[in-house]
Amino acid sequence: VAPSSAADGPSRAPFTAEIAELIEPFAPPVVSFHFGLPAPALVQRVKGWGAKVLSSATTVEEARQLEARGVDVIIAQGLEAGGHRGMFLTEDLDTQLGTLALVPQIVAAVRVPVVAAGGIADAAGAAAARALGAVAVQVGTAYLLCPEATTRPLHRAALARAAERPTAVTNVFSGRPARGLVNRAIAELGPMSPLAPPFPLAADGVAPLRAAAERQGSDAFTSLWCGQNPSGCKAVPAAEITRAIAAGLV
Amino acid sequence: VAPSSAADGPSRAPFTAEIAELIEPFAPPVVSFHFGLPAPALVQRVKGWGAKVLSSATTVEEARQLEARGVDVIIAQGLEAGGHRGMFLTEDLDTQLGTLALVPQIVAAVRVPVVAAGGIADAAGAAAARALGAVAVQVGTAYLLCPEATTRPLHRAALARAAERPTAVTNVFSGRPARGLVNRAIAELGPMSPLAPPFPLAADGVAPLRAAAERQGSDAFTSLWCGQNPSGCKAVPAAEITRAIAAGLV
Repeated sequence: VAPSSAADGPSRAPFTAEIAELIEPFAPPVVSFHFGLPAPALVQRVKGWGAKVLSSATTVEEARQLEARGVDVIIAQGLEAGGHRGMFLTEDLDTQLGTLALVPQIVAAVRVPVVAAGGIADAAGAAAARALGAVAVQVGTAYLLCPEATTRPLHRAALARAAERPTAVTNVFSGRPARGLVNRAIAELGPMSPLAPPFPLAADGVAPLRAAAERQGSDAFTSLWCGQNPSGCKAVPAAEITRAIAAGLV
Repeated sequence: VAPSSAADGPSRAPFTAEIAELIEPFAPPVVSFHFGLPAPALVQRVKGWGAKVLSSATTVEEARQLEARGVDVIIAQGLEAGGHRGMFLTEDLDTQLGTLALVPQIVAAVRVPVVAAGGIADAAGAAAARALGAVAVQVGTAYLLCPEATTRPLHRAALARAAERPTAVTNVFSGRPARGLVNRAIAELGPMSPLAPPFPLAADGVAPLRAAAERQGSDAFTSLWCGQNPSGCKAVPAAEITRAIAAGLV
């Protein structure tokens, strides 16, 4: 129920009572939120299903608030992470922390289990996260070339050559900060633009340009979400990547 | 011979033939450069002493260039690191990498040993760095409260309460990007200001304001260098901190 989808940008729908109603019959065992939590009554409703509630924190302060509001597990999202940053108590990107600094400080500050996210691509990264006190890891970028992923062709092509260009956190594709491979849109309009319409409206703003460029086979205006460590991207079944990463957690 | 000193900001002197002449009689076994390397003839001269040459890289590209120019060891400086960023092939802070993402990608790209720097504060951090392929760690912030450190009183007081405010990378104190605790100077003039005089002249520009504020006991215009993980700062002898961190390397 994270409001963002890795391949195509953010969903338009925040988590409301109507959405809870739709999900309730499925009684998911885990519900993971991004951009903070919905209203306390909604969190309680989700917990009432027996679901474990997860949410992302990008600072120690956010982690403390999530714990106070009853989350079962905190995802410590370092700034290496691809896609949207889950930040919700601050809008200040200048003070966002790297995974290696963020995880141990959140582990020390809360009692709930902490999952590390951001920059983890393989067993070595998972082992590092464990050393820092994380109980598990959340990995995104490494799966984006898997046949199971809905990653679009231009995005796949960019990820397969990700080492050739850097990533940056940009708001030009959705209105909220998210990390992707630097292309013309980020270089010329951003990375952070005060002119970007508020989330999620920026996606509408850039859509015609993106569509026109994509018709010409260009990714210049496409959101190419990618973390800072794309070295784990492989066009192999997701289970294979999962087993390889999990080897670092034992 | 790094051109920056942790407590008081950058030295004015780049590494020149005159400086090499002064150092030569001491034949230091290790010479570590920051902000890239001096001219090839000077690097060869230092190597001629039998010294091992180290230098910092903040990107894979910088690491590759350092290796091509003959460094013996590369320090992978993640953006968590306090003080001056060693970046020398790029001025783009938006594409700087966290330690967890940077170290394994540099380890994979070069044949020389890699030292991890940035966000490492204790044995757990050292163990994480080892898991990522680093042979050693370089730690700065954790030592700043040691009796051996020349950290000034206002800086010490700020570090002792570092958890109360975030850090940011700023150019307002020296003209080059460096990470410190956010104070009034960073908040109101930066963090990155296009008006900052070029390195190292910004230090002169801010000096009168800093001196006036310090006379009033205020750190509002003082460079309070600090990495993103100040949890290791303790007012104990440096040897004690070293032994604690080294426990994570075995």
